[in-house]
Amino acid sequence: MAWPEPRNTGMIYRRLGRSGLHVSAISLGSWMTYGGYAQDEEAFACMKKAYDLGINFFDTAENYTAGQAEIVMGKALKHFGWKRSDLVISTKINWGAVNGDILVNNHGLSRKHVIEGLEASLERLQLKYVDVVYAHRPDRLTPMEETVRAFNYVIDQGMALYWGTSEWSADEIAEAVGIARDLRMIAPTVEQPQYNMLVRDKVEGQFQRLYERTGLGLTTFSPIKMGLLSGKYNDVVDGQPPKDSRFGASKDGFADFMRGRMGTDSWKEEIKQVRQLKPIADRLGVSQSQLAVAWCLKNPHVSSVITGASRPEQLEETVGALKILDKLTPEVMDEIDVITKNKVELDPARQS
Amino acid sequence: MAWPEPRNTGMIYRRLGRSGLHVSAISLGSWMTYGGYAQDEEAFACMKKAYDLGINFFDTAENYTAGQAEIVMGKALKHFGWKRSDLVISTKINWGAVNGDILVNNHGLSRKHVIEGLEASLERLQLKYVDVVYAHRPDRLTPMEETVRAFNYVIDQGMALYWGTSEWSADEIAEAVGIARDLRMIAPTVEQPQYNMLVRDKVEGQFQRLYERTGLGLTTFSPIKMGLLSGKYNDVVDGQPPKDSRFGASKDGFADFMRGRMGTDSWKEEIKQVRQLKPIADRLGVSQSQLAVAWCLKNPHVSSVITGASRPEQLEETVGALKILDKLTPEVMDEIDVITKNKVELDPARQS
Amino acid sequence: MAWPEPRNTGMIYRRLGRSGLHVSAISLGSWMTYGGYAQDEEAFACMKKAYDLGINFFDTAENYTAGQAEIVMGKALKHFGWKRSDLVISTKINWGAVNGDILVNNHGLSRKHVIEGLEASLERLQLKYVDVVYAHRPDRLTPMEETVRAFNYVIDQGMALYWGTSEWSADEIAEAVGIARDLRMIAPTVEQPQYNMLVRDKVEGQFQRLYERTGLGLTTFSPIKMGLLSGKYNDVVDGQPPKDSRFGASKDGFADFMRGRMGTDSWKEEIKQVRQLKPIADRLGVSQSQLAVAWCLKNPHVSSVITGASRPEQLEETVGALKILDKLTPEVMDEIDVITKNKVELDPARQS
Amino acid sequence: MAWPEPRNTGMIYRRLGRSGLHVSAISLGSWMTYGGYAQDEEAFACMKKAYDLGINFFDTAENYTAGQAEIVMGKALKHFGWKRSDLVISTKINWGAVNGDILVNNHGLSRKHVIEGLEASLERLQLKYVDVVYAHRPDRLTPMEETVRAFNYVIDQGMALYWGTSEWSADEIAEAVGIARDLRMIAPTVEQPQYNMLVRDKVEGQFQRLYERTGLGLTTFSPIKMGLLSGKYNDVVDGQPPKDSRFGASKDGFADFMRGRMGTDSWKEEIKQVRQLKPIADRLGVSQSQLAVAWCLKNPHVSSVITGASRPEQLEETVGALKILDKLTPEVMDEIDVITKNKVELDPARQS
Repeated sequence: MAWPEPRNTGMIYRRLGRSGLHVSAISLGSWMTYGGYAQDEEAFACMKKAYDLGINFFDTAENYTAGQAEIVMGKALKHFGWKRSDLVISTKINWGAVNGDILVNNHGLSRKHVIEGLEASLERLQLKYVDVVYAHRPDRLTPMEETVRAFNYVIDQGMALYWGTSEWSADEIAEAVGIARDLRMIAPTVEQPQYNMLVRDKVEGQFQRLYERTGLGLTTFSPIKMGLLSGKYNDVVDGQPPKDSRFGASKDGFADFMRGRMGTDSWKEEIKQVRQLKPIADRLGVSQSQLAVAWCLKNPHVSSVITGASRPEQLEETVGALKILDKLTPEVMDEIDVITKNKVELDPARQS
Repeated sequence: MAWPEPRNTGMIYRRLGRSGLHVSAISLGSWMTYGGYAQDEEAFACMKKAYDLGINFFDTAENYTAGQAEIVMGKALKHFGWKRSDLVISTKINWGAVNGDILVNNHGLSRKHVIEGLEASLERLQLKYVDVVYAHRPDRLTPMEETVRAFNYVIDQGMALYWGTSEWSADEIAEAVGIARDLRMIAPTVEQPQYNMLVRDKVEGQFQRLYERTGLGLTTFSPIKMGLLSGKYNDVVDGQPPKDSRFGASKDGFADFMRGRMGTDSWKEEIKQVRQLKPIADRLGVSQSQLAVAWCLKNPHVSSVITGASRPEQLEETVGALKILDKLTPEVMDEIDVITKNKVELDPARQS
Repeated sequence: MAWPEPRNTGMIYRRLGRSGLHVSAISLGSWMTYGGYAQDEEAFACMKKAYDLGINFFDTAENYTAGQAEIVMGKALKHFGWKRSDLVISTKINWGAVNGDILVNNHGLSRKHVIEGLEASLERLQLKYVDVVYAHRPDRLTPMEETVRAFNYVIDQGMALYWGTSEWSADEIAEAVGIARDLRMIAPTVEQPQYNMLVRDKVEGQFQRLYERTGLGLTTFSPIKMGLLSGKYNDVVDGQPPKDSRFGASKDGFADFMRGRMGTDSWKEEIKQVRQLKPIADRLGVSQSQLAVAWCLKNPHVSSVITGASRPEQLEETVGALKILDKLTPEVMDEIDVITKNKVELDPARQS
Repeated sequence: MAWPEPRNTGMIYRRLGRSGLHVSAISLGSWMTYGGYAQDEEAFACMKKAYDLGINFFDTAENYTAGQAEIVMGKALKHFGWKRSDLVISTKINWGAVNGDILVNNHGLSRKHVIEGLEASLERLQLKYVDVVYAHRPDRLTPMEETVRAFNYVIDQGMALYWGTSEWSADEIAEAVGIARDLRMIAPTVEQPQYNMLVRDKVEGQFQRLYERTGLGLTTFSPIKMGLLSGKYNDVVDGQPPKDSRFGASKDGFADFMRGRMGTDSWKEEIKQVRQLKPIADRLGVSQSQLAVAWCLKNPHVSSVITGASRPEQLEETVGALKILDKLTPEVMDEIDVITKNKVELDPARQS
């Protein structure tokens, strides 16, 4: 009896930092979409498409759409019956006030909330464990030792296999790693920051000494900066969203936020840069979205780029970015740096 | 889908010492009342009122009314169906001889009693875990290492989230913290002492170096010193309890204790001071009880003041203390110190 | 509601070494009796009598009567329904070949046998945990670290609360304690050696530095040296057991062993001493058995003297020893030392 | 009631390295046979025969015949109902892609795969735990700390009692032992390398300092080098397998591999040596297979020689090797060394 033949999807898998866990270089996040503006059928279809494209890493959080994102993902995982070991599921803990009434202990990184929050997430996901649990933002008022112990505890209890951080500063990560080492506990393996052509300082600057010293991996979000780098707002310079955009009339908080940004000085400056990137995408024969995603993956510290999708076709386009990595030669990367003017030079004094 | 709106009760929440756990500044204890002289209906009504007032912290002990206090609290928690993560439940272990027959191992802080005692408490409370388990008084004959290991064990087993001490001395707490650090175990987070305008030495004097060094928090009991600071005994100077007081005829041990105290020299001295405090309360337009509770909360090391109540109205009055914190200006605090003559001056030689 | 009144049986309880666990100064062992020559009814009656006399400590071992002793004890505990926390139950692991077929891993102190052996014992005892699990004899071929880890593991798993050794040498105990400390694990709390007026070297000599340094406690067995110190063999000097003795005709291995001893030179020497002890017992108005048991308890390092009983009356007599402790004045103790000629003088060079 | 009489099979048992676990000097492996070319009835018959011969150690791996080997072994263990403590069951984790679809995390020594892989193995074996879990080949890209933590975790969870390595290099083993010691975790106890008269360098050379320094034990495989040392290919010098051999026509990968080897230069050199060994076997009156197995057991670092069998008679012959250990005198061993020309001289500079 022989092994079943694995699928050949062309997906690229990378190690999560220095760890032994492999994640698809492109992953599917559920922020705002599943349980939110996307219908369950759309969410299911996107997850199916992602799996078929070789994506094995699905990311969510306890607070995405007040817990609904986890519920929808859990239903889909159960529905499709994929083998658990073929999947890497992550969630994030910090705001978990689902049905809460006295909210003080339903957020933060106290021992109480990390444990209770993850237990509630696992129930919504209908899973025995997640592969990665993230500390969703730092909690600067809770002692780091309490937080490190709590994440180590949930791993010891079999509720998670690895833990990471999201939007922490370099010194916070370093402190957590140091405390974990002193206590002989498991240190965070991965950080999840925003990273794209327009936002580079943290990943390329602040974290530069952590990669080698702690083996830190990155799963990055917002590769097209909430749509901006796709070029779809290239003509929106005066603050009026396109009529057919979902921001045109939608009344949710995010739409408000986006409408508020449009037309500001920083918006105009960013749009200006994005428009300059268009000729490069055209020349390479790719969409601006693909260029933006591929650009993130050129950074070897990025284990996976988390993307959102409310329609399966979007995923097909995004995954297409994997095929153009070779086109992003050093010369093209330099061209982009000239436009974005935000390349982080390594500080010799900060080298290890 | 948005978050449900949290209740706005005006309650103040404080961290339990330096930890990440939040407790309401006023909490409800069950000593002598629930399962004791209060009927179950009264206990339920008080817990409901407490919850409605924003109180999230409910304190009990294995030996309150021989385990009945936990049983009543457990029934109420089940009856009201409040979300577990909205609550902070604590119990205390040291005397657990409920239905015991050979009592030697039903008390103390041995590994055996800490584990068996907490298991029995959880069964009575119908809970999987308490948030805080206290070592109820020190056990000076059991090795501190055995006690520290036992509390760390119950936390590791998921039977509690934090542990603390009650009525321990400063050096006992410091020894426990030191042993926990050496063993890489979890140190006690909180101490529960008596604290009120008439009893200040331990909290203000003996513990003064622990707050910063170990992050110790306090949950204090007896804010009105068993009724004394409410002013209701202001006219009892000759040792005869008021006719309508429950101590007038009641035969339980506590009533005996109270009748025994009335009329002694120390009683007369205390009543004298309490009568001097009345004009201050009158001037501020508050009751003497409210003044006494608010005074405790002016100490920033106090995470929560534990109060008792056998009728819901009592709780409303007590919680009213939160609104007068601003009225307790440094000048008013000085006035009180002059009356009580027991302010603890910080010893420069003991400063860290 | 008040505490139930504990029973006052006159029993004396001592701490198990320096630990927080209390054991009755006289305890009931099950070696050779329960599941062996005593019927189940007798075993039940003895355990009931022991409990009524205030005995809380019941000792057994996986290999006593090939596991039957544990089965009988388990049935009795279930039958009487005593509160678990009122009891201290111990068993010992080293030979567990019950129904075994390939015996190599059914004995010794390997991780495999300690875990599998205790699991099987608990099943026979119908208990979730024992209070104390002993390493029954040392296993000099298994690394001490493996043994220490295994006992710490079963405590961590909630299968035992404390662990000890039986018939280990002082340096073996010291090695185990040292390894446990290095690994931050739980060290052995108690040793179970033979100890009686005729066998004193280990307890008084070899172990003398361990009591203070490690807090070691003792539960001693064979206080009347298999009947010898009861005086019932005082007339058996020629090697012929009394006709009404169970050794007269019994064919089990132990009877063979006893018949083999009778009449040897060492037997004659011991009988001579035992006969000299009779006048002392007579003068004090006690039986020789009571004198022998009381003598053991005069040693403050002895936490409990383990006795056997196949009839309830025997236990009544044995427990009577507690009432004569005061009669064993220093002068009487000296008289006994003169007879037994085996008092261990403390070696100044070995004092700590 | 006495102990049941253990069977006397003449089997020799050895400690697994310095540990307390005993394994039969000859053990039964399931590579390629059970779930593979042998029918289930044959597998059952071989396991029964092995058990009857006193073999207590049964070895398998998650990837043997894509999980089928474990399933067959599990069925047999359940069918025969042998006492669990009489058995030593091992499996190996590194390739577990049974029914997998996205294979990246179904192999390697990541925390994810070690835990998920062993869970799946235990399910196939229908066991609560294995005695030994091996890291099947090193995983040089996963941090050693992650791997050590993962194996320690599965032991802590009661899924295994010991862990070992298979086909690791000496420095990899030394690194794992060092990390385990630093983390106060359980170090690997055993290595499973290939070892036979023709392949000696690793066992006798590379590992020479590990035995004493870490207590490493060996369970060796391939004692007759896939049939070669049995002498059955002594006439196959030209690359044509014997007509009645299963390699004559069989089309599986292993048969291809064997046919590919036959006739190469190294094959010819090895056959030449094997033919020279025949006179020694003849002189001792044993088969060449028995000589080959007995030779392995002369090495005191070998705890067990793992053999395969598709028919019970093969096992009888193999176990016969135990009876000829005395015949392998130093002179005979020297004779063999002269033929194989691969004796490893201990390097004085590498001695500890």
